[in-house]
Amino acid sequence: MCKTRVLSAPGVKMPFEKTTMERRALRPDDVLIDIKFSGICHSDIHSVNGEWGEGIFPMVPGHEIAGVVAAVGPEVTKFTVGDRVGVGCFVDSCGECEYCLKGEEQYCTKGVVQTYNSLDYDGNPTYGGYSQKIVVTERFVVRIPDALKLDAASPLLCAGITTYSPLKHWNAGPGKKVAILGVGGLGHLAIQYAHALGAEVTVLSRSMNKKDEALSLGADHYFATSDPETFKTLASRFDLILNTVSANLDVDAYLSLLRIDGTLVNVGAPGTPDQYNVFSLLTGRRSIAGSLVGGIRETQEMLDFSAEHGIAPKIEVIHADQIDEAYERVLRSDVRYRFVIDASTL
Amino acid sequence: MCKTRVLSAPGVKMPFEKTTMERRALRPDDVLIDIKFSGICHSDIHSVNGEWGEGIFPMVPGHEIAGVVAAVGPEVTKFTVGDRVGVGCFVDSCGECEYCLKGEEQYCTKGVVQTYNSLDYDGNPTYGGYSQKIVVTERFVVRIPDALKLDAASPLLCAGITTYSPLKHWNAGPGKKVAILGVGGLGHLAIQYAHALGAEVTVLSRSMNKKDEALSLGADHYFATSDPETFKTLASRFDLILNTVSANLDVDAYLSLLRIDGTLVNVGAPGTPDQYNVFSLLTGRRSIAGSLVGGIRETQEMLDFSAEHGIAPKIEVIHADQIDEAYERVLRSDVRYRFVIDASTL
Repeated sequence: MCKTRVLSAPGVKMPFEKTTMERRALRPDDVLIDIKFSGICHSDIHSVNGEWGEGIFPMVPGHEIAGVVAAVGPEVTKFTVGDRVGVGCFVDSCGECEYCLKGEEQYCTKGVVQTYNSLDYDGNPTYGGYSQKIVVTERFVVRIPDALKLDAASPLLCAGITTYSPLKHWNAGPGKKVAILGVGGLGHLAIQYAHALGAEVTVLSRSMNKKDEALSLGADHYFATSDPETFKTLASRFDLILNTVSANLDVDAYLSLLRIDGTLVNVGAPGTPDQYNVFSLLTGRRSIAGSLVGGIRETQEMLDFSAEHGIAPKIEVIHADQIDEAYERVLRSDVRYRFVIDASTL
Repeated sequence: MCKTRVLSAPGVKMPFEKTTMERRALRPDDVLIDIKFSGICHSDIHSVNGEWGEGIFPMVPGHEIAGVVAAVGPEVTKFTVGDRVGVGCFVDSCGECEYCLKGEEQYCTKGVVQTYNSLDYDGNPTYGGYSQKIVVTERFVVRIPDALKLDAASPLLCAGITTYSPLKHWNAGPGKKVAILGVGGLGHLAIQYAHALGAEVTVLSRSMNKKDEALSLGADHYFATSDPETFKTLASRFDLILNTVSANLDVDAYLSLLRIDGTLVNVGAPGTPDQYNVFSLLTGRRSIAGSLVGGIRETQEMLDFSAEHGIAPKIEVIHADQIDEAYERVLRSDVRYRFVIDASTL
């Protein structure tokens, strides 16, 4: 066992407290990580606020973890003390089902163990990255390339893989016209990935406010969705629209922007259902789809790709004491584009 | 010009009249067809009843046409007098756009010319198959193999290709678990195609009434959707669900029956929007899609495949005088499974 400092939410919508907790003793295949930085994901806020079902409290959120290996169990083969490593949304899976064997642990048949607010297979709750130490089985630890700073790398563990994986799955690349809907924590990474993958990238955002920034991130075109002309100009334009916005959408309007066989992929989810007219799909063999983060192998690929192409999120590093204020700012969309907690301030 | 007898609807929801009209003089690439049989499609009823927008009246519906070539223009190369031929939902397209060049004329950029209730590129309205003769450019005429009877072949020109095309597009075949939702004009053909393509076929129908028939058509399993246990038993089971029902659906319930990467494909469209929870898509990288009939090349492939595998619709051949009654029976689902008009009775 090993004590660690954490930021813990004692109950639904309650302010965070700085406190301590125990991490489990190292199992043979476990890695003990000294956490350096932990990103704040919007889903942390949904979880703490009880918006995604009853949570397990006290709750230590955080699934965008970057740090350094401090100790390894005797059977660990991939890592040694001092390695720069990351942990994302999951910390265990069955390892035996067809999806685990394919490296798509997020779809594990037994049910993947989430990094926090989840029950481990031994029945104990999991506690996440708003912490100074964490113990994770090496299968769910990835290597952070030297070219990536640890603070900027942390949001890649969720926001990065959540956008990289669907772009790869739906073949964003040369000759493809891809629209990124929304310029936030997810969207500003999606623009960089789609551009680096070779696609022609159009950014769709409510207003023109983020145009310069989007273009500097690699967008080829930028349109405001508040302007009805946008939907006429861009009719039947895209092979793929990646929707990074978690609000309800005029689905038919966005489907009208897709070419034949085009796909509207959602990576965020609003709390209430979306509506669509089946004719919008029929008339162009179009699809509406969803994608959930990505597997461990692809997460490593995403980190390596990010290092190779100089892709990183824009972040604002905060002191642990600023956590409640940061949550409020995320809810007001007052962050460009991702908060990262400096774990040394815990 | 050539006179022909037709069944014509003088106005919205008005009873049909037997009358005559002129077909155009043969152009160099035209084929004159003596129509023998013409299937009744549910979309004929939507069109005559003004449910899909204002129609062009008088209206001669019918896009499931089977007959024999009676004359050909001087530049026709594919057909000669006496050939057994069919015409489906379309009679012209631009022939130059990327979709026409790919043989997917249904998605023609210029807009495909529909067999009836449409404007031809010369500005004249089109009149369909409830008729004894029709003139069609040879590019939109397909050959009906000798092994298919003309009466049973006619519904294949719409109902057949509408179900065959998505099964092929989404790779129904050996090792795939396919559900066919609905056993009607479309569904009873979809069962046969999915089975002949080598998929494991499950039929989902409201009640158990059509179980024996579905199994005799090639279904491996049959479940009633009125039984809530069905949705537990079949959870995460299918690679593909082909929805042949044009009513609103509990989309999330059907998405829960899909495996990871599974697709719910709609080939019919209800008049009002459907709803879905984005989480139903996210959690399994699932898709909701739609498909619209098929191109001419694939229509020919479907006819040849039907002949090879002994696939045909179950039909009830009617006299032209029974048309209004037949429409009422289609609306009551009182037909197993497709009405076909004997054109000699016009």
